[in-house]
Amino acid sequence: MTFHQQLRRAWNASDSMLCVGLDPDPARFPRGVNSVFDFCTSIIDATADLVCAFKPQIACFSAIGAENDLEGVCTYIRERYPDVLLVLDAKRGDIGTTAEFYAREAFDRYRAHVVTVNPYLGTDAVEPFLRHPQGGVFVVCRTSNTGGDDFQSLTSNGEPLYQHVARRVVDHWNKIGECGLVVGATYPDELKAVRAIVGDLPILVPGIGAQGGDLAATLVGTDSTGVGMVVNSSRAVLYASDGADFAEAARTEAIATRDALRAVYGAKK
Amino acid sequence: MTFHQQLRRAWNASDSMLCVGLDPDPARFPRGVNSVFDFCTSIIDATADLVCAFKPQIACFSAIGAENDLEGVCTYIRERYPDVLLVLDAKRGDIGTTAEFYAREAFDRYRAHVVTVNPYLGTDAVEPFLRHPQGGVFVVCRTSNTGGDDFQSLTSNGEPLYQHVARRVVDHWNKIGECGLVVGATYPDELKAVRAIVGDLPILVPGIGAQGGDLAATLVGTDSTGVGMVVNSSRAVLYASDGADFAEAARTEAIATRDALRAVYGAKK
Repeated sequence: MTFHQQLRRAWNASDSMLCVGLDPDPARFPRGVNSVFDFCTSIIDATADLVCAFKPQIACFSAIGAENDLEGVCTYIRERYPDVLLVLDAKRGDIGTTAEFYAREAFDRYRAHVVTVNPYLGTDAVEPFLRHPQGGVFVVCRTSNTGGDDFQSLTSNGEPLYQHVARRVVDHWNKIGECGLVVGATYPDELKAVRAIVGDLPILVPGIGAQGGDLAATLVGTDSTGVGMVVNSSRAVLYASDGADFAEAARTEAIATRDALRAVYGAKK
Repeated sequence: MTFHQQLRRAWNASDSMLCVGLDPDPARFPRGVNSVFDFCTSIIDATADLVCAFKPQIACFSAIGAENDLEGVCTYIRERYPDVLLVLDAKRGDIGTTAEFYAREAFDRYRAHVVTVNPYLGTDAVEPFLRHPQGGVFVVCRTSNTGGDDFQSLTSNGEPLYQHVARRVVDHWNKIGECGLVVGATYPDELKAVRAIVGDLPILVPGIGAQGGDLAATLVGTDSTGVGMVVNSSRAVLYASDGADFAEAARTEAIATRDALRAVYGAKK
């Protein structure tokens, strides 16, 4: 099954474009919760029927030496919730043999369906991910942080850099349904421009909830089937409550976000 | 001590611009060597007096779940060879809180003096690394892989993207000696162009030895003091022999590479 096929399955099963990002930060855990694995699996169990994807942020685990927890969390998702897409957010980007090692990390070690990658090093930095039998990539295209303009907006041959990236993904890198793009929702015109370039390739939108993106803006990013997006919320869901009710509060927040998205793009069922 | 101060100390102590890259691949270990830590520390002990830096490639460790070995290797370098610069090759690039987690990974967990970072996400993706009291960054600027041209050569306002990156590093990101750049040696004119833009900022050259860069080309990358570069060789040193003499063979190869570099730029002592 390609990444696109797995994602279609996830959209169909959940009727949701919501992705819950797993960014565990022990400093923000509710009192009494001490395990990264326990915190993440509580959130997963509370929201799995509401989402098309879970997106662990590897940096949160690496900073505290919690790779074993991440392995456990990924296995938990794959085995308990096989319909859900597993996105490893790692923004990897390196060449040749090194990229092969990163592909092994994402797909073999953590069993991700798809990993976020950085385009700056070009085609052969992405190929090792694409060569993997079931691996997919979300290529970072346009980010909505304040520094996103520093390079991504530089215009060459009449188009900003991020549109060159979008073109290369759809024209060269995607062959059998293994590519998508990461595009922030802060600038709806840019999301629309990327959608116009990439056709029905899936778009991961990282910036709603705590990151402050514009929910309604995501509407312009839907594909020809009215879906096409994986819209992430991390901290707004994870840390909806710092009390014993944190999992329940996460569920409430996830329902509200899923429904707000549905109100914009329309439920499919 | 800033990254630049540590690097000057390393250049002075070693009279060498050679960096040995630690890319352990158990499939290539000599017979009888089974431990990633043992392999790396054998190479380190055999070459430490010949190098200004060691550069562990984190992907090699992450692919096989060897983070504990990487922690051990980094501690070993810091404690046994305090004059040597510790470069964590990780090519990290993400925004806000996530970048802070990556900075903690590089500087607190692995105790690196400097980490390689990807510029695509712009200023605020690099700031968390720069804010760290002793942390430095080598910003990926120009790579010499076949896909390096895909985006890095796109011209905007009369300059290719990688030169825009170089300008931003020297004009905005480097303040007290915490920035350097990564530039491949395959295209000497480009290395020269970057050097002209960035003045005396250190340049990490990843591509000699097994990666096939042009050793003589590195000459054009030296700074006003005749040094200025960290020239990496990984596999040519690590896998110089697959026999019991692997450490000795690594030393022989490292001496040859250091001396070839000296012949080009001239020994300082």
